[in-house]
Amino acid sequence: MTTGKADIGVYGLGTMGSALALNLSESGFRVAVTNRETDWIAPFIAEAGSLADRLVPEMSLEGFVAALKTPRTILFMIPSGAPMDAMIETVLPLLEEGDTIIDGGNADFNDTRRRFARLEGTGAHFVGMGVSGGEKGARHGPSMMVGGTDHSWTQLKPMAEAIAAKFEGDPCVDHLGPDGAGHFVKTVHNGIEYADMQMIAEVYGILRDGAGWDAPRIGKLFEDWQKGPLSSYLIEVSAAALQVMDTETDKPIVDVIRDQAGQKGTGRWTVIEALKMGQSASAIEGAVGARGWSSEKETRELAEGVLSAAAIPTEMPETDDLQSAFLAARILAHAQGFRVLSAASDEFGWNLDMARISEIWRAGCIIRSALLDDFAQAFRGELPQGHLILAPAMAETLAQTIPALRRVVAAGVSMGVALPSLSGTLAWYDSMRRGRGTANLIQAQRDFFGAHGFERLDKDGKFHAEWPALAREQS
Amino acid sequence: MTTGKADIGVYGLGTMGSALALNLSESGFRVAVTNRETDWIAPFIAEAGSLADRLVPEMSLEGFVAALKTPRTILFMIPSGAPMDAMIETVLPLLEEGDTIIDGGNADFNDTRRRFARLEGTGAHFVGMGVSGGEKGARHGPSMMVGGTDHSWTQLKPMAEAIAAKFEGDPCVDHLGPDGAGHFVKTVHNGIEYADMQMIAEVYGILRDGAGWDAPRIGKLFEDWQKGPLSSYLIEVSAAALQVMDTETDKPIVDVIRDQAGQKGTGRWTVIEALKMGQSASAIEGAVGARGWSSEKETRELAEGVLSAAAIPTEMPETDDLQSAFLAARILAHAQGFRVLSAASDEFGWNLDMARISEIWRAGCIIRSALLDDFAQAFRGELPQGHLILAPAMAETLAQTIPALRRVVAAGVSMGVALPSLSGTLAWYDSMRRGRGTANLIQAQRDFFGAHGFERLDKDGKFHAEWPALAREQS
Repeated sequence: MTTGKADIGVYGLGTMGSALALNLSESGFRVAVTNRETDWIAPFIAEAGSLADRLVPEMSLEGFVAALKTPRTILFMIPSGAPMDAMIETVLPLLEEGDTIIDGGNADFNDTRRRFARLEGTGAHFVGMGVSGGEKGARHGPSMMVGGTDHSWTQLKPMAEAIAAKFEGDPCVDHLGPDGAGHFVKTVHNGIEYADMQMIAEVYGILRDGAGWDAPRIGKLFEDWQKGPLSSYLIEVSAAALQVMDTETDKPIVDVIRDQAGQKGTGRWTVIEALKMGQSASAIEGAVGARGWSSEKETRELAEGVLSAAAIPTEMPETDDLQSAFLAARILAHAQGFRVLSAASDEFGWNLDMARISEIWRAGCIIRSALLDDFAQAFRGELPQGHLILAPAMAETLAQTIPALRRVVAAGVSMGVALPSLSGTLAWYDSMRRGRGTANLIQAQRDFFGAHGFERLDKDGKFHAEWPALAREQS
Repeated sequence: MTTGKADIGVYGLGTMGSALALNLSESGFRVAVTNRETDWIAPFIAEAGSLADRLVPEMSLEGFVAALKTPRTILFMIPSGAPMDAMIETVLPLLEEGDTIIDGGNADFNDTRRRFARLEGTGAHFVGMGVSGGEKGARHGPSMMVGGTDHSWTQLKPMAEAIAAKFEGDPCVDHLGPDGAGHFVKTVHNGIEYADMQMIAEVYGILRDGAGWDAPRIGKLFEDWQKGPLSSYLIEVSAAALQVMDTETDKPIVDVIRDQAGQKGTGRWTVIEALKMGQSASAIEGAVGARGWSSEKETRELAEGVLSAAAIPTEMPETDDLQSAFLAARILAHAQGFRVLSAASDEFGWNLDMARISEIWRAGCIIRSALLDDFAQAFRGELPQGHLILAPAMAETLAQTIPALRRVVAAGVSMGVALPSLSGTLAWYDSMRRGRGTANLIQAQRDFFGAHGFERLDKDGKFHAEWPALAREQS
């Protein structure tokens, strides 16, 4: 170990904190490290090998803070709820004017906004930073979404850019806006991740339950897709996972894994925040719902014997159709995510740059895919109302792929394979592409029974109709 | 006007408050009335005609409280946000041991729980009461869902039962549980109402946009349906509304109404609260989403010229299929609502009685329908895991109607008519009726990139697999 003040401090040596500290050290920065349980520190240093030269272990918070260059940059990788709030109150008296503390966990952006406000006027700054890419990403190049002050970004930028994933040399990190902007963008990233994982599972379901394909065969198909426009980390992961055999049973590992998925909250948060802003991201809703229903395994096993499939014999879609359908649905699911970002940007005055967000998602993060670069270009080009699906290139791809999405969803519906996210994207597409929808009937119903009034197409204002008395009003 | 203390006080003479006050008076109770704007009081009394005999107008809150028999029963029909909180603090010093104040508005049940807790220890009691049926219902017989103490229910019961709608003599009101139980049940009622309205609009859409039917013809079809198992207030309203002509343009009124629906929050609350409990009510999500998308009229008009329909020629479903499909979907949408109620009952320890809730929804409320009595019977009968769709009668009806739902959704999907709620019910059905779902792949993905671990089918515990290194890990 060398001497001298550290460039940055990392508090919290769990999976993600350790990986980021090593990444920073490897990138040439001096990194002070500490942990609530101090007995984690020595083993971490021991395992760091030559990278330990630039690591500065500290056994106390006071020592940790004192070990940092001022203005200080302190990255907290700790649980984002009450522990983060408690930490802020503990560390704040130790800080000086211009110091920045960063929450690098998956925080609820509402908490981040509150904490940002808490630090205003103290001289210290709060940053909420979303980090995507899992442990490997954190260690070798994550995608990072930063929300905070310009002052904090000036401090953090050289280090963040050094450790970030690169897409053709461009670091996958940026200052996206103030307060909760970074954590909100990370939340929506995860929402899109939920949708993408679910849609892959739906394609898997239609092949397994509709066509009787075994897991490795489906994995091979995804391997082929990986060479085309669907190329992405999640397809790659799925292709590989479907071909792994369980050493104990000699079956494909996915065949021994329980069909019951957990969730940590970010998918749900995306849906809830979208709803609060009058938005609906149906692909993400489908994915969150499917995870919830999957957890009712006991009920499903019971229901299987009670509820009729009542399926309708149908031809299995071609694999080319599945590929095109997934491409359409992936575009639509991302477009829904970006709409949620737009709504939040308006609501909170963040002025989010959708092109830049697309760019920093091109590498390092879980949803990285060939499409993200196309999205970035679409957002930089002609884009009516900032609506991704109205970009000429997107509209053209959709025109070519929507028929396949229709065939696949119709087949699933007929055969009885649940496709909540795939069908959710299509319902949105068909809702948004119609100038004249059906909510006029809902306005009529609401005025009929609740006197809510309605608007007319031919003139402005609020109107009521003379609705007839009903023949058989129940008393 | 006669003299003597009043049985109940009604504060707030808006649409619903006025109607409830008149209903109470007509039922033989003496009703003290007041209003924040005191100049509303005299006109209300003047218009009450002979019912004014049992109305006691009061110009001040103090006079209003003093005019009531003790223990007092005071019904507040005022906006449910900050005004209700302010009112509680204002009225509390005027109350005595055993008095009950009732919030009869569409409050967020979380607020009701907070207010209930606020009054604990003060000697006064807080009731959250959901009132459904619109103005007519409130005036001539609403359905009411009461949350509060037994003490309050003893006070309120005779009056509530007198004014409630009756189903074969049984009053459509009951004490459903403590604190927020009544308002929560009302919220879910409204969520189901959203879904039912949306599914009617979807059937309208498929007939209008898929088959070219005009509005009165669709109204006539709904009139026919009203004679069968779909008989319900909302079908009746829709049948009538579709046949009303606009006097100015001589067109069906729905053809001049803007296709843009508002929402007040209860549908959204249902979805959000469901999500918080790990539930998903996809039929309600579809309805809330559709209202949100409908409000983006300008975008939709622009999109119509940009986005291809890319429809697939398909035969229009028979009207019998539409009828059966709607029956299946209506059962499923209600079943989702009841699942949300079950989850909340567990979460908050309410011990909700689903049969009783079905019963008090049989008349008076907006979702009243022939099905509610069937649901009540199903809940009183053999019901595995309390799951409505597993009741033998329901499973049988679903077995007969699900093929029609499949045909209708597949047709909409092919033709390009958005059916978010109808398809949402089917995705849920197909998810719940499968003992073996597809979330195993999602567990595999999550362990692959995030080391979240997975469960196995063949033994307990949490496991990790040796996932392969990916060929082309992006840096």
